[in-house]
Amino acid sequence: MPTSTDVAAFDRRYERLRKSIDAKATAAYRRRKPVSLYEPAVYAMKGGGKRVRPVVTLLAAEAVGGRAEDATDAAIALEALHNFTLVHDDIMDNSAMRRGVPTVHKKYDVATAVLVGDAMLAVSYEFMLRVEGERGARAARAFNRGLVEVCEGQGLDKEFETRDDVTLREYIGMIGKKTAALLEACCRVGAIIGGGTDGEVEALADYGVNLGLAFQIQDDYLDLFGDEKFGKPIGGDLREGKKTYLLLSALKRAAGSDKKRLERIAHKGGAAKKDIPAIRKLYESLGVPEDAGRAVRRYTNKALASLDALSREDGRENFAQLANRLLDRNA
Amino acid sequence: MPTSTDVAAFDRRYERLRKSIDAKATAAYRRRKPVSLYEPAVYAMKGGGKRVRPVVTLLAAEAVGGRAEDATDAAIALEALHNFTLVHDDIMDNSAMRRGVPTVHKKYDVATAVLVGDAMLAVSYEFMLRVEGERGARAARAFNRGLVEVCEGQGLDKEFETRDDVTLREYIGMIGKKTAALLEACCRVGAIIGGGTDGEVEALADYGVNLGLAFQIQDDYLDLFGDEKFGKPIGGDLREGKKTYLLLSALKRAAGSDKKRLERIAHKGGAAKKDIPAIRKLYESLGVPEDAGRAVRRYTNKALASLDALSREDGRENFAQLANRLLDRNA
Repeated sequence: MPTSTDVAAFDRRYERLRKSIDAKATAAYRRRKPVSLYEPAVYAMKGGGKRVRPVVTLLAAEAVGGRAEDATDAAIALEALHNFTLVHDDIMDNSAMRRGVPTVHKKYDVATAVLVGDAMLAVSYEFMLRVEGERGARAARAFNRGLVEVCEGQGLDKEFETRDDVTLREYIGMIGKKTAALLEACCRVGAIIGGGTDGEVEALADYGVNLGLAFQIQDDYLDLFGDEKFGKPIGGDLREGKKTYLLLSALKRAAGSDKKRLERIAHKGGAAKKDIPAIRKLYESLGVPEDAGRAVRRYTNKALASLDALSREDGRENFAQLANRLLDRNA
Repeated sequence: MPTSTDVAAFDRRYERLRKSIDAKATAAYRRRKPVSLYEPAVYAMKGGGKRVRPVVTLLAAEAVGGRAEDATDAAIALEALHNFTLVHDDIMDNSAMRRGVPTVHKKYDVATAVLVGDAMLAVSYEFMLRVEGERGARAARAFNRGLVEVCEGQGLDKEFETRDDVTLREYIGMIGKKTAALLEACCRVGAIIGGGTDGEVEALADYGVNLGLAFQIQDDYLDLFGDEKFGKPIGGDLREGKKTYLLLSALKRAAGSDKKRLERIAHKGGAAKKDIPAIRKLYESLGVPEDAGRAVRRYTNKALASLDALSREDGRENFAQLANRLLDRNA
């Protein structure tokens, strides 16, 4: 168990890395022309919150004995890549707001958002390809693998919208690509640049993918069982009929008229707002929250177990704390 | 002057390379999952016509004494990159048809076309990053530079739509990025992988950018002064009020009521179909076709002159013939 002193030290380290990357990430698109293209990119990169992905990249480099500063370009690239996915996902999902401000395609228009996303991605590779030598080449391939998987995950997510027979196993496969693959790429890229052994790179990659799975399932859980915060209404996923871990778990456990009711929600595009409390009760009676909790713990434990392969104690310690921090949404 | 025997030999070589790349380019997205993501990508890559960009890449490798087959992955990457730009450009321009079939966003939908384009780009980097060693790293950066410029060129093109003061010089800067940068990247990437000297790489890059400029200006010329073919109606650019080389040259040369008339076309979104013949006459009286013809010859000659830096005669010969072939649209 980390002591409170450890937690405070980790928090300071995280905050220092976050701040260093925050300014550089927004600056990535400044002083570039044409302004009409890059100004919306700066807008999309601003107010980026926790900057989890670049900080993870820097921490991964340190965890294997490398220097965080050597991974700075890669960290910026991964943050830019993440923000590119948000700009294009918001078009696909027709989302109007993100982080409390209008999405790029709402503030500008769809054509601009398509192109701005493309340019953000192009510039993210520019940063990534600054990393030299054989480590740079390996890191670039890991980065690219992350992008391919994110696209495939998004494709699966869209495919699931129109399918009636999605299993929990398929769902885990989808979020493994859509959400977890990018965190995996951050760990892998950082560890490669930091000069980690193959064992260390794979251990951190395993950590990343499992923590990403835990994080997404917890996100699904909080949609219905979390506090209403950040202006995000309770049950948003349910109202859209999104096939989340909760709904798929409930579908698996329910029978008779309960099952029929849930099938209507999944296949007819969602639940009415007034029905949310009753569905939450149904989920509780089916044991869905416990099911999700077990899944979060299982993937978190897998993530933590993979840290045993790291030789440096500070690396193990930082990544254990990172898991706590990411999964403790009240922090 | 190339003899007809040379031309026939070049045509055979081009056709052989085109065929070899044609099948591989379409196969790039086959046997990948999810099918719902990659099937539209295969669709977008099909019927790709002349496959100019990958063939140029292969020829550039050969022109500096390398083997075309070493540049195959890069050539596929460049063709995929080109087709990615078409999928996203068609969304931005709201184009319904391409190469005689519905565009991706019309056949599927906008959300699918955004994501499919992203996945095509991701996979194009996958191919590009297969090239190993220091040459691979340099080639990947040249490839990336091409993508950044294409995005910036598209951004400028969009910006020009709403501006009243675009100069011919700015226009050349824009098409230098939007159209020519990709051909430049093909030349550069091929020459790097083929093991060309720095001088040879820069010479072929110069060739690519100048030929790209000549090609685009000729394309603008053919919109109004070419034969009506491929079902493309005469004066399409003029009807949209696109600020092409012709319109900008005419604006520069016209005065009085002629100038006012052209300004209305440029600033109010185009000309009526019935006015096209009269505007063509006006252009002729202003000397616009000759102006465009001189520009095409100037950039073509610059392209050809840069070939002098190549040490291999077959390299110079092939690229001279390539210029003839690309600029002779009746071929």
